[in-house]
Amino acid sequence: MAESSEVKLLGTWWSPFAMRSRIALNIKHVNYAFVDENLLSKSELLLKSNSVHKKIPVLIHGDKPVCESLIIVQYIDDVWTSDPSILPSDPYDRATALFWAAYLDEKWFPALKGILFGQGEDAKKALVDQAVEALVLVEEAFGKCSKGKPFFGGDQIGYVDIAFGCFLAMIRVTEKFNDIKLLDQAKTPELVKWAERFCQHPAVNGVMPETEELAEYAEIAIVKMRDANPPKS
Amino acid sequence: MAESSEVKLLGTWWSPFAMRSRIALNIKHVNYAFVDENLLSKSELLLKSNSVHKKIPVLIHGDKPVCESLIIVQYIDDVWTSDPSILPSDPYDRATALFWAAYLDEKWFPALKGILFGQGEDAKKALVDQAVEALVLVEEAFGKCSKGKPFFGGDQIGYVDIAFGCFLAMIRVTEKFNDIKLLDQAKTPELVKWAERFCQHPAVNGVMPETEELAEYAEIAIVKMRDANPPKS
Repeated sequence: MAESSEVKLLGTWWSPFAMRSRIALNIKHVNYAFVDENLLSKSELLLKSNSVHKKIPVLIHGDKPVCESLIIVQYIDDVWTSDPSILPSDPYDRATALFWAAYLDEKWFPALKGILFGQGEDAKKALVDQAVEALVLVEEAFGKCSKGKPFFGGDQIGYVDIAFGCFLAMIRVTEKFNDIKLLDQAKTPELVKWAERFCQHPAVNGVMPETEELAEYAEIAIVKMRDANPPKS
Repeated sequence: MAESSEVKLLGTWWSPFAMRSRIALNIKHVNYAFVDENLLSKSELLLKSNSVHKKIPVLIHGDKPVCESLIIVQYIDDVWTSDPSILPSDPYDRATALFWAAYLDEKWFPALKGILFGQGEDAKKALVDQAVEALVLVEEAFGKCSKGKPFFGGDQIGYVDIAFGCFLAMIRVTEKFNDIKLLDQAKTPELVKWAERFCQHPAVNGVMPETEELAEYAEIAIVKMRDANPPKS
């Protein structure tokens, strides 16, 4: 087990992307110091450690910074090899996991963000349809990746579990604010059951924000965003 | 060496993203069949093999399709392990290579595409500044990754070489059409020398499009795009 002084994670309590690193570190039983950054006044350490994007999360291992949440998860898997693997060892399964994680970030997350923070009922409705359609694909992917086991990663939480699971609290808040169901018993029954299992996993349940707490935070963020960009009359 | 019947690449001759897979296959001395897709009338095989994005490139290994250019490169590296490694084996160097490849695709390529296909002189000028500024960062990354050796990957072409090098023909066409320099002796002298070395590499020189040929093709594409989206008067 690494000493906590050796591993530091710069993040925020609510960030799904920081959560990915935390879950990966928990899976590998790595002690680490969590630095809760104020994104309105970023620390010198953050600005120096991720001088290109100036964004969280950043994992600092010894004196080396690693940036970008999915790259951090791969790095954690590559460094702490004794515990369960996060990425599959089979090259094809590995490529499939990388594919779905990229899909979630590039195609699915923008729709979720649009529903949560966007404006205009018609635009939102289109995004809800898009997000649900994408989740049906992810449900199919779950069948192929899990091969009848509880997680995308099989018996253990793996790369796609982490990549997707980190969004669950945000999904719940988005559902609550918009009175909709994104993860739905009728269309994505396997993902509904998977989400329950994922949230109960010991590597996850201490780092997943409570829906109510995240909802309060998101409400303030949405009001601030609308004040800054009032709807066009 | 794999039989050509076992490995098939769906791409187009001009696609920088298909080129990534071709260079990786060449490095690994894998025989493969190249299928030049007509993107205006995509084959059933392409639509079936990449049913999510319906895009090239797709590597078909046996009967298994692998999609997304950087994931294909990782897959090739994972499957054909006897030849030079494409991704570094050290976890930190590996994370650094993944970081710069993602940076090029997410931050730098949209600027290049905007200069080549976009409209409006002021918007283009801003994109040129943005692209050159990004290349100065890539020049710095070259120093750190190559550690004084000829390529990002050290003595051999590696992951970042492939990720970046595939854009060189498109960079030359963009420079020619706009009478600008993106890779510049004054600002990015190491990248200028690297680009020459990269293009002369035996894994690359048969698959890099000729500037003139690509320019002709791009000119037709730009005219078509402008006809479809005439500038607002």
